[in-house]
Amino acid sequence: MKIFVTGHKNPDTDTISSAIAFANWMKEANNVDAEPIAQGEVNEETAFVLNYFNVKAPRIVTRATDEGVKNVILVDHNEFQQSIDDIEELTITGVVDHHRIANFQTADPLFYRAAPVGSAASIIARMYKEANITITKELAGLMLSALISDTLLLKSPTTHPTDHPIAKELAEIAGVDLETYGLEMLKAGTNLSSKTEAELIDLDAKTFPLNGKNVRVAQVNTVDIPEVMTRQEALEAAMVGSMNKDGYDDFVLIITDIVNSNSQLLAVGSHLDKVEAAFDVKLENHSAFLPGVVSRKKQVVPQLTESFA
Amino acid sequence: MKIFVTGHKNPDTDTISSAIAFANWMKEANNVDAEPIAQGEVNEETAFVLNYFNVKAPRIVTRATDEGVKNVILVDHNEFQQSIDDIEELTITGVVDHHRIANFQTADPLFYRAAPVGSAASIIARMYKEANITITKELAGLMLSALISDTLLLKSPTTHPTDHPIAKELAEIAGVDLETYGLEMLKAGTNLSSKTEAELIDLDAKTFPLNGKNVRVAQVNTVDIPEVMTRQEALEAAMVGSMNKDGYDDFVLIITDIVNSNSQLLAVGSHLDKVEAAFDVKLENHSAFLPGVVSRKKQVVPQLTESFA
Repeated sequence: MKIFVTGHKNPDTDTISSAIAFANWMKEANNVDAEPIAQGEVNEETAFVLNYFNVKAPRIVTRATDEGVKNVILVDHNEFQQSIDDIEELTITGVVDHHRIANFQTADPLFYRAAPVGSAASIIARMYKEANITITKELAGLMLSALISDTLLLKSPTTHPTDHPIAKELAEIAGVDLETYGLEMLKAGTNLSSKTEAELIDLDAKTFPLNGKNVRVAQVNTVDIPEVMTRQEALEAAMVGSMNKDGYDDFVLIITDIVNSNSQLLAVGSHLDKVEAAFDVKLENHSAFLPGVVSRKKQVVPQLTESFA
Repeated sequence: MKIFVTGHKNPDTDTISSAIAFANWMKEANNVDAEPIAQGEVNEETAFVLNYFNVKAPRIVTRATDEGVKNVILVDHNEFQQSIDDIEELTITGVVDHHRIANFQTADPLFYRAAPVGSAASIIARMYKEANITITKELAGLMLSALISDTLLLKSPTTHPTDHPIAKELAEIAGVDLETYGLEMLKAGTNLSSKTEAELIDLDAKTFPLNGKNVRVAQVNTVDIPEVMTRQEALEAAMVGSMNKDGYDDFVLIITDIVNSNSQLLAVGSHLDKVEAAFDVKLENHSAFLPGVVSRKKQVVPQLTESFA
């Protein structure tokens, strides 16, 4: 019986690496025919990682039932709106995740492993050790990259104390220097100039149903916030276009400076008062500076959830 | 910071034992001030277990906020309607469970550990081993009893292959013979004659929101189904009374023969056609025999979920 292992839509490095690493874990630990799949093209950062460690990107499968596959394992997400298109028709046999749990339910008991740690890959690396399965150089590189990506080199408040020794160990197996490799990898994901505004706002975007409203929260990483803000007008136009096309009530864009660990907020939509309340800021020209904010999961989504409640 | 560890309403042996065992695990592994609490009086089977191993029942706390406690860990359940009354006001920092996930959500990432195994206590026993924490004779007895209770001595289809070695090991530490002790314990829970019909249908009952309908599913264990069925008329009257009082759309009672592993179904409510379809039976006088059915979780709730969908 074949099982697909998939991360979320708009795949990032943690989602792709976790799918590959956990599919391999399922094979090694449980002798299961598990194939990693992706819900879209990999981004530039992930392409850098796959190229560096010479691993192929998973193929894109957006409907498992089209291939006769009925069982799926979710990594790095659980909310159905972020998952494979036919999720409601599939049996979810397992989840490995590090996000809040919402808009998720099953008819049967399942395997679920979540922890409030820096990346889904952190949990998977731990599961390799628990099951005494060897971590290859390639998989160590992928899981390390996932952790670096999600925590901005272990600087995000989502970083868990246990993530530091895991990063150290994975870097050793992967044969890279954590800081040097990490910065090089993160910078590979900040080449924004080649992208249209419509691409930028969809690069790492997730939809959250907040008290009946559909809120789109996108994030882009950069080393130069002012450079990105020169495109503010076009970015807002793209956000409004996406809102109208896909039926979002609000669109929030977080532009994160990965070196100095701050963010600039851009917001359009029907509830700007709630966005302001969430971050305790006054929007000026749809924008505000958010000092110290780098984590959508910990410093953006819970605040919006409370504000929209 | 104090954390409550609670099982579900209408507590059974797995819920009480798991709360006690996991609160202790939190203390030992994380040095957390965790107190086990209960959502109601313990049943006769659990009272037998606590008495046998000389452990005090957790105190009953149905609103954590009344005691100034804001954080809770759920064991043996996740659905909010089965949980502590003020669950929506609390921060859920962790869950250890072996049920489907439904009607559950959080604002923040959390620790979640679930597996499709025989009891929540099976998972907790494994966590003791992973963290190298000594299992005392008392805790081994409680966790063993939880597993025996939920799997009817490892005979239910919810029993996982890994439950057998865990039961063996726990029985050794607890200093009991698995079969002898298990049967004695299960029989302690089948003394139904002293109970009113209203008590019987509430002994081990859970509410499931199925496609907008509130379905109450109760189960009683016995060694003599015909004896219980002599009270059919009064049982149905009690079920209808409970439906009217608590606003259920349907009430399903599963009377389980723990020796021969069969059940008798009793059903009242607005959707008897859906109940019939769920089990592929024709109700006669509101009742049907369900050969081989012993597990509400695996052989009753998923079938009702699908039928009501």
